[in-house]
Amino acid sequence: MCESGALRLGPVALVGAGPGDPELLTLRAVRRLEAADVVLHDSLIPEEVLSLVPKTAKLISVGKRCGDVKDRGIQQKEIHELMLANSRRGCRVVRLKCGDPFIFGRGGEELEFLTAHQVPCEVVPGITSALGAAASCQVPLTHRGFNTNHVHLCVGQSKAKTLPDMDWKELANRAMQQTAVFYMGLKLLNQICATLKEHGAPADTPMMLVESATSPQQQSLHATLGTMPEEVLKQDFGAGGPVLIILGPTACFPAHLESLASPSKKRRTEPSPAVAGAQFLGGELAA
Amino acid sequence: MCESGALRLGPVALVGAGPGDPELLTLRAVRRLEAADVVLHDSLIPEEVLSLVPKTAKLISVGKRCGDVKDRGIQQKEIHELMLANSRRGCRVVRLKCGDPFIFGRGGEELEFLTAHQVPCEVVPGITSALGAAASCQVPLTHRGFNTNHVHLCVGQSKAKTLPDMDWKELANRAMQQTAVFYMGLKLLNQICATLKEHGAPADTPMMLVESATSPQQQSLHATLGTMPEEVLKQDFGAGGPVLIILGPTACFPAHLESLASPSKKRRTEPSPAVAGAQFLGGELAA
Repeated sequence: MCESGALRLGPVALVGAGPGDPELLTLRAVRRLEAADVVLHDSLIPEEVLSLVPKTAKLISVGKRCGDVKDRGIQQKEIHELMLANSRRGCRVVRLKCGDPFIFGRGGEELEFLTAHQVPCEVVPGITSALGAAASCQVPLTHRGFNTNHVHLCVGQSKAKTLPDMDWKELANRAMQQTAVFYMGLKLLNQICATLKEHGAPADTPMMLVESATSPQQQSLHATLGTMPEEVLKQDFGAGGPVLIILGPTACFPAHLESLASPSKKRRTEPSPAVAGAQFLGGELAA
Repeated sequence: MCESGALRLGPVALVGAGPGDPELLTLRAVRRLEAADVVLHDSLIPEEVLSLVPKTAKLISVGKRCGDVKDRGIQQKEIHELMLANSRRGCRVVRLKCGDPFIFGRGGEELEFLTAHQVPCEVVPGITSALGAAASCQVPLTHRGFNTNHVHLCVGQSKAKTLPDMDWKELANRAMQQTAVFYMGLKLLNQICATLKEHGAPADTPMMLVESATSPQQQSLHATLGTMPEEVLKQDFGAGGPVLIILGPTACFPAHLESLASPSKKRRTEPSPAVAGAQFLGGELAA
């Protein structure tokens, strides 16, 4: 409950909502939402998540899309001011962000602002999209057998909608020995692929795109560094939601698993057992 | 409930338990544990997490330490066989892993094995230690103001207890423009620091160590690439639990926040408000 004329600043929790699937919220995120007086949330936060907030609390959409580099609608400065104003009213504020607050989430800037104003502040981590997509698409980000012991999380475009300042030569050289995940890279996909190839990355490096990872609308597209730009055009991919690019040997994992599972390649004589436990595997958020 | 003489294979869920704090489990992880017949779990999984498993279910410690590169006790092959044997009994199996199954967790190998045996398999992502430590230590992994738009997750040692095969020159060159997180790096800390300096990384690059991230025993140590080896010796750091190394400009964030919060540097005339909401911020897992 907010206190009118509060003498104490209400606490602000910067909470990661995860990649989209409401069941990927952490227990702490749920507790913070249930105890909130005010929730300032990004766009694309699912209704099931927002419904955890008490009816008496105030929900304010601050209009940034998950993983979007642009600030849409209310700008970052206004988000800061809204957090502060509600804290000054003695409210328990949740700033609910897609993914994880500290991976391309501006959590650092919000933490700085709040700290400078003496607002007590907590950060609740969330499943970042790369991990959510990897799990739901069954693509390991590290794998000894595929010689990938190194993961890069990077953005696919900078503020100015150009390729970000990165060591593209290194990314290209190591393309087959690591997993690179580009957030927000679809618009510059062609440039990303061309730049990596110019720097010597093998055209047959596996690449996949994941749209709306972990949501019911999830779609994925599997190709290579060389063929992906064309595939995207063919399939008209990425119109619906945020897209993640995964580049590296394990990006072909789904096809690899399929070949492992195929009885024709395994010389098994026993019949293939029926798939059990659909309910166990396919559960949805309990009401 | 396992079915004796089951005709169908029971499903296996590879579940990330997160970095240690039981409240950082996802809702889906909780549901899988609550529905499990058999749980094969790493060491260092907290008692509060295991207590979510029904009393009638079987808990089997498979003895690997979180983030440990060695296989202790039961080897990986035996874990595979245990998963398969219990699936063949028709049991719902949870393979509960520290952190995230797909980040240095051998989830890929387990998934391959299960798929090759036609076992229905699901992956539930977890908060990986880097994200858990970043949130609990308030160290953003990306930050525009600190010019870090790129995160590396890597191991600090290879199977042979030597430095892993990575592009150390690139890591060194970009030390001040990205965040590198080394899992399992404490034993080779001196070599990591020396190698990065040899390749030209600035000695004053901020570095922090986090031990037992997100657990009640969490400790952190803040220094630089140049001074950390000496600091570790002085403080006898890292005897208790797994240690994560964070290298990059934002590793000094806690000190930076302290300077922002300090009223003496802010010329504020109003009194510093009392910290509110301790209960909101410091909650523990509800029983």
